[in-house]
Amino acid sequence: MKQIGRIRSSLKNRRDCPFQEKEGAPEAWIEIDPAYADGLYGLDLGDEIIVLTWMHLANRDTLQVRPRGNRENPLKGVFATRSPSRPNPIGIHQTRIIDLDQPLKIKVQALEVVDKTPVVDIKPVI
Amino acid sequence: MKQIGRIRSSLKNRRDCPFQEKEGAPEAWIEIDPAYADGLYGLDLGDEIIVLTWMHLANRDTLQVRPRGNRENPLKGVFATRSPSRPNPIGIHQTRIIDLDQPLKIKVQALEVVDKTPVVDIKPVI
Repeated sequence: MKQIGRIRSSLKNRRDCPFQEKEGAPEAWIEIDPAYADGLYGLDLGDEIIVLTWMHLANRDTLQVRPRGNRENPLKGVFATRSPSRPNPIGIHQTRIIDLDQPLKIKVQALEVVDKTPVVDIKPVI
Repeated sequence: MKQIGRIRSSLKNRRDCPFQEKEGAPEAWIEIDPAYADGLYGLDLGDEIIVLTWMHLANRDTLQVRPRGNRENPLKGVFATRSPSRPNPIGIHQTRIIDLDQPLKIKVQALEVVDKTPVVDIKPVI
């Protein structure tokens, strides 16, 4: 897995992170590594994108969780939840480009991951 | 990256694959490795899911493409396209569970990737 960039966010630790973008996640910057700058060509202000992150703080050996960390929720397989704990902790975040500091910085409307989380892909919403 | 399973599809080579699920992609089975069976607990018939694949035949050094392989389309950065060619060829496929042969096989409505493509994650649509 190649790291193409990283998230810069005001969320400095995991317990500050909302469970989903729609639950009050702040704006964030994506910093792209110079080696991948050519891959951004064609992304524009206002575009809806899917950002894929590698949630590096997650536990990769967990196969069942109680959703939202609530002990009253029954156990579920991680593939039936959006828990960051899973064999491959790939985060999928749908958001919108609200600023571009070309060629290497993209500001997005809402991201619920912690500062310095690696970014592994960006795709347009279709 | 851990392989949690693989796709079994009637699509046997890349040139048979549609560009998107909605362009006539066939039903397919997802075979999960026994080590990850516990992670499926709670997935049900009819559930909408996002399947993440590792598109192992893609070129990982490509940073710009002409969308849909059409020479008349202008070059775009791979992060502004859904091309499988990209630094981390992670496929995102939204589909629906139409059959379950528990605990290790899931049939889905439409998948546009080639037979034997590795599966790296499954998430519910929320």
